[in-house]
Amino acid sequence: MTTTFDSIAGQLDGQAIELPSWAFGNSGTRFKVFSTPGTPRTIQEKLTDAAQVHRLTGLAPKVALHIPWDKVDDYSALREFAAGVGVELGTVNSNTFQDDDYKFGSLTHTDAVVRQKAIDHHFECIDVMNATGSSDLKIWLADGTNYPGQGDIRGRQDRLAESLQAIYDRLGDEQRLVLEYKFFEPAFYHTDVPDWGTSYAHVTALGEKAFVCLDTGHHAPGTNIEFIVAQLLRLGKLGSFDFNSRFYADDDLIVGAADPFQLFRIMYEVVRGGGYGPATESGTSPVAFMLDQCHNVEDKIPGQIRSVLNVQEMTARALLVDRIALDAAQATGDVLGANAILMDAFYTDVRGPLAAWRESRGLPADPMAAYAASGYQAQIAAERVGGTQSSWGA
Amino acid sequence: MTTTFDSIAGQLDGQAIELPSWAFGNSGTRFKVFSTPGTPRTIQEKLTDAAQVHRLTGLAPKVALHIPWDKVDDYSALREFAAGVGVELGTVNSNTFQDDDYKFGSLTHTDAVVRQKAIDHHFECIDVMNATGSSDLKIWLADGTNYPGQGDIRGRQDRLAESLQAIYDRLGDEQRLVLEYKFFEPAFYHTDVPDWGTSYAHVTALGEKAFVCLDTGHHAPGTNIEFIVAQLLRLGKLGSFDFNSRFYADDDLIVGAADPFQLFRIMYEVVRGGGYGPATESGTSPVAFMLDQCHNVEDKIPGQIRSVLNVQEMTARALLVDRIALDAAQATGDVLGANAILMDAFYTDVRGPLAAWRESRGLPADPMAAYAASGYQAQIAAERVGGTQSSWGA
Amino acid sequence: MTTTFDSIAGQLDGQAIELPSWAFGNSGTRFKVFSTPGTPRTIQEKLTDAAQVHRLTGLAPKVALHIPWDKVDDYSALREFAAGVGVELGTVNSNTFQDDDYKFGSLTHTDAVVRQKAIDHHFECIDVMNATGSSDLKIWLADGTNYPGQGDIRGRQDRLAESLQAIYDRLGDEQRLVLEYKFFEPAFYHTDVPDWGTSYAHVTALGEKAFVCLDTGHHAPGTNIEFIVAQLLRLGKLGSFDFNSRFYADDDLIVGAADPFQLFRIMYEVVRGGGYGPATESGTSPVAFMLDQCHNVEDKIPGQIRSVLNVQEMTARALLVDRIALDAAQATGDVLGANAILMDAFYTDVRGPLAAWRESRGLPADPMAAYAASGYQAQIAAERVGGTQSSWGA
Amino acid sequence: MTTTFDSIAGQLDGQAIELPSWAFGNSGTRFKVFSTPGTPRTIQEKLTDAAQVHRLTGLAPKVALHIPWDKVDDYSALREFAAGVGVELGTVNSNTFQDDDYKFGSLTHTDAVVRQKAIDHHFECIDVMNATGSSDLKIWLADGTNYPGQGDIRGRQDRLAESLQAIYDRLGDEQRLVLEYKFFEPAFYHTDVPDWGTSYAHVTALGEKAFVCLDTGHHAPGTNIEFIVAQLLRLGKLGSFDFNSRFYADDDLIVGAADPFQLFRIMYEVVRGGGYGPATESGTSPVAFMLDQCHNVEDKIPGQIRSVLNVQEMTARALLVDRIALDAAQATGDVLGANAILMDAFYTDVRGPLAAWRESRGLPADPMAAYAASGYQAQIAAERVGGTQSSWGA
Repeated sequence: MTTTFDSIAGQLDGQAIELPSWAFGNSGTRFKVFSTPGTPRTIQEKLTDAAQVHRLTGLAPKVALHIPWDKVDDYSALREFAAGVGVELGTVNSNTFQDDDYKFGSLTHTDAVVRQKAIDHHFECIDVMNATGSSDLKIWLADGTNYPGQGDIRGRQDRLAESLQAIYDRLGDEQRLVLEYKFFEPAFYHTDVPDWGTSYAHVTALGEKAFVCLDTGHHAPGTNIEFIVAQLLRLGKLGSFDFNSRFYADDDLIVGAADPFQLFRIMYEVVRGGGYGPATESGTSPVAFMLDQCHNVEDKIPGQIRSVLNVQEMTARALLVDRIALDAAQATGDVLGANAILMDAFYTDVRGPLAAWRESRGLPADPMAAYAASGYQAQIAAERVGGTQSSWGA
Repeated sequence: MTTTFDSIAGQLDGQAIELPSWAFGNSGTRFKVFSTPGTPRTIQEKLTDAAQVHRLTGLAPKVALHIPWDKVDDYSALREFAAGVGVELGTVNSNTFQDDDYKFGSLTHTDAVVRQKAIDHHFECIDVMNATGSSDLKIWLADGTNYPGQGDIRGRQDRLAESLQAIYDRLGDEQRLVLEYKFFEPAFYHTDVPDWGTSYAHVTALGEKAFVCLDTGHHAPGTNIEFIVAQLLRLGKLGSFDFNSRFYADDDLIVGAADPFQLFRIMYEVVRGGGYGPATESGTSPVAFMLDQCHNVEDKIPGQIRSVLNVQEMTARALLVDRIALDAAQATGDVLGANAILMDAFYTDVRGPLAAWRESRGLPADPMAAYAASGYQAQIAAERVGGTQSSWGA
Repeated sequence: MTTTFDSIAGQLDGQAIELPSWAFGNSGTRFKVFSTPGTPRTIQEKLTDAAQVHRLTGLAPKVALHIPWDKVDDYSALREFAAGVGVELGTVNSNTFQDDDYKFGSLTHTDAVVRQKAIDHHFECIDVMNATGSSDLKIWLADGTNYPGQGDIRGRQDRLAESLQAIYDRLGDEQRLVLEYKFFEPAFYHTDVPDWGTSYAHVTALGEKAFVCLDTGHHAPGTNIEFIVAQLLRLGKLGSFDFNSRFYADDDLIVGAADPFQLFRIMYEVVRGGGYGPATESGTSPVAFMLDQCHNVEDKIPGQIRSVLNVQEMTARALLVDRIALDAAQATGDVLGANAILMDAFYTDVRGPLAAWRESRGLPADPMAAYAASGYQAQIAAERVGGTQSSWGA
Repeated sequence: MTTTFDSIAGQLDGQAIELPSWAFGNSGTRFKVFSTPGTPRTIQEKLTDAAQVHRLTGLAPKVALHIPWDKVDDYSALREFAAGVGVELGTVNSNTFQDDDYKFGSLTHTDAVVRQKAIDHHFECIDVMNATGSSDLKIWLADGTNYPGQGDIRGRQDRLAESLQAIYDRLGDEQRLVLEYKFFEPAFYHTDVPDWGTSYAHVTALGEKAFVCLDTGHHAPGTNIEFIVAQLLRLGKLGSFDFNSRFYADDDLIVGAADPFQLFRIMYEVVRGGGYGPATESGTSPVAFMLDQCHNVEDKIPGQIRSVLNVQEMTARALLVDRIALDAAQATGDVLGANAILMDAFYTDVRGPLAAWRESRGLPADPMAAYAASGYQAQIAAERVGGTQSSWGA
């Protein structure tokens, strides 16, 4: 490598990857949800688990909430609880897919009463944000249809635009709306926000506080995701990432697990496009980096530790790319040379330098080993007896 | 059309499409399972609903069971109950995906104790078959892994072969084992029986009572399914179909809903390859035609009626293909001519002639309308109050 | 059907599907281009062949040109020639993929000299449009890269925007620019205009004379194309279609051949969204319907006849949809009912009524048969001896 | 790493990756084939170029021929020429896709005369093998259809089986037939050998000298290729690899370029399944490792050097996997632990140790740099003036 790790180490400071509260609860497929000892029963227990990830990695200072899964009576108290265990409350995620009323749509429903109910739910989420100090409202919609003809694709778009406008108008000055898109599931014929183009068209119509959320698992097979990253950064509309990985559909595996090279390419375009680092520096709205994963068969807390480490390792590799040499090779049509410069960074083993980086900052060199040695898992397994383990349903 | 409907009408007699008992219970996605009034609480109620489909269409004389979902104490009594409402018990489906022991595999598990438990479950299924008179044991495995390295792909195959042999050896002389393959889900990195080639290799090793089950929703994007139908019929190993349709993954939509032309092409290869009609006539083992669908958002009983009608309509179109003219066009490299002969059958509207066919056999001309008019749905909604509605979990 | 053919027959008048001049030349794959007797050597012969399609169907009054493949010295003379054989000259297609200079890009190239050459080529195309009276300049770019790192994705977008602006500024008041997107090929890592979102972002930045061109074969597997149609019509940016069909990649098969139901759904959304019929009526810019196909193994002229008939047949079915009944079913969440209304139109055999429609307008009832009987193919095979048959290369 | 590079270095000796003669000629897409200075005009020039790859890497002792592209009058003389420049002649590839007679099929054609012509071509290839001492006859068929109905899928299989038998019967005792499968292209509706299952069924029917050829670019999107590797090794039928990589279709990019992690997983299953190393050791028929790539936009000779280095680097990583630790983690259901063991090997930077390994064996530490410094490219560009550059057509 012509670029040394030392020269980029400073840029790794301050990296923050938001954890999803729901990653600490049980999840699974339509076939089976396996439960595990020690799984949180409450949002407080989820926050406590999430704090372990941050304590050991220094990478995860915030936790995203999901309403109503993480509903409490007193959000100010929750905010204090979080601070007490060492994390902040982050993005608020709405949920309009688990109520019987939403069987045929929420913000797109033909019935104005149902649409208003879904809009009101988002108003409630904004109230939560006001109480927690969260800046981002993330909207992922399960809306769509299973059969051709079931719904009116065009009419649903028009109603969606109207509903989003009502929600957007309620945002405070420092709040943002991020609209996630998804190729399919749970709808199997058409999805109302299936691609970045649709999300982009809507957030552009809404205004400067609306952005696109890119979930890395929500694309058609073969989609070049780093292209979308580059494009949205160029258009000033990349609001946030939902990181995970996939081999097939929305598998929600650990980010970087299925295709580490793809994660590297994505992080490279983030860096290239000014999406990494302090927002003031890049002159653009900050990009929020979040995880959105399911730990169906692996342990949850170490699964989250592994995830943020993967993002950090690929960020380091992306920062290591010798961009001056790359520019020169690209300008002369040196295909193999340009590719080699990129691959050199990818193949560089950053794990040793990152361990040293951690130690120099008072963190354990090996967070996975440190967690295993901590006895935390045995402790929660012993303590959390009785009650109902958290899952997507509650 | 050069081939008239009258000339093929007789071949439609005796067509039988097996219904899955679980199609009458609730189903959904990992995001939500919607419930509906009138959903069966017991296998007896499922059979009663299934009998409505057969009564109105004459197409669905058998119902497949799923063990343990349809477990009862007395299968002889269940057999009599079925006969009483007008259907027979069909294929027995095993289930090794909802027990905690199977988190990391069943017939492929590294632990011999778990493997034996899974084998024993299949022995129990064979016992059920002996009691019900069912001839087919269908095995679909959720076995697989989510992460590279999680399991030993090769070792799992060897264990699978061994476990299947133990099950196969228990079959009676008139019983068959059909092994289903699936591209992915619930496993998201590798599936132990992912493609027809794997299923074929195993059933060939087992012997002449083992066959492949082809689920039309279990393939990679773009797979030419009718080719597999033609190939398996040629190899004498097509045991059964699980019919459904899909736009994306294993969507389990109503068969023919997503791509009616594909269903037509599949049925054409079935007819072409001798897989349709009495087994004695074709000289091969009979192909079992089953549905395997989820009615997540649509009504279940009419969903099943629509499904068997779709299969019947496409069978009629497939029989209408003028094969003599087609052979001639194919032999002379007349691409457009050959294609036109196939399309002519597909574009022929068989709905009117089929209505007449039904009436001539004492069936309602329009089974969907007849069901709507029957009042059955209102009746079960009123009667089936209390208890636990059936779903995949129970 | 509740909607009768008679009630929609009038809406079929005036339907126009533009033919691509290059469909009459030889085409193939990287493995082989087969030649056939009678293939045109000149644009005049291509126009003459195209005129046969219009003469027999009344559906194809225009022929799109491809520059430089159809380059002539005198475009006014070509315009007159076209009028003489009974067709008009339509869309002008640029070509920046067959010159060695464009190996690493055209409008996106790092070298300003190459970019200007590509821009100048489009200026030349606009000159051709001025001479032929064509209103649409269609831009499809082969620009992209084969290897990660080969090019700078972000920089290429910025240069693309600049180049497009230069071209756009040259358009006359009544001229339009339509920007086509394509998932992949000939570039195999990234394509500079890979999806509708990218095309939409560019044409929106350009202005009201710029639109998106949707090629039905240019999407990722599983993409819901009719959704994009509905969305672009809603956004007022659907400029034109390139019709063809595919099972796998950009197969360029006859439109409707691979998935006739998909073509029906697309035409339904066109009708639903106001994209069909006189532009003045719908209040939007007119949508241009074009074919873009390859007849690699089938006869070219009948291949084009079959194609325009497929579009017409599916348009008729789309017009037959009982939208009032559909709206009602959609509004009440009647999934099976709504789907059935759509399918009723699809399954209606419109071929007989369309034959009558043709005869009533002085056209042959069966254009395919009429062409076969005309002796035209034998005539051109006999006459067109010597010279170089047209293909993509010339 | 618990496994050291030193402990596996010896296993890297003797690794051999066969080069395709056609990789040194021009290739491209249906849109454009770019030519480059110095491109070989003859098979002798191709062999001379290929020898450079072997001289600098020690990895590529053999060159595969393609008949008729590499046809010569005297194959004994060619064999001596190859030996003179330092390589051997390897696999013979047949070609039945560039003759007009094969427009509608070759070994599957309805016309017995065309089938015999195609069989005779394979006899000729066996004659070449006898003269060159090549052991493997590789058959990749372009046979297939573009439109439903165009051909009789079932009948084509029967004819294919018959034709293959005739070819197989002509093989010498030490010769093998390897049958390649391909998902699609150039056929766009159905391919006669589309998947490993079909190839497996045919080679099993043929006998013990027939094997499957796995081209890494010939699968449906999402296919788990390492599973197929593991399965075919288990079944004793993996004959050879055609290495390349892809993002979309059969892109034929440099192996490892699109998804290096996938190449690693494939090599791991090769090692795991006994497919790596001397055949006598593993007790199975040897697996032949070949490249099959297109260098459309990058330099050809360094493109091949990069390719064999990629295979070597991933082989080293695969050998580094601590299989004892992996077995233990797999046996206890330690998902994250097992995955980490695999990833540890993948993330280990083997480039330094491999450079030392090369130097210790008298090879340049950096073959890419050594080639660039050699002046060979400038020399062939200067010398190879005039004549017709080799490409797929000749």
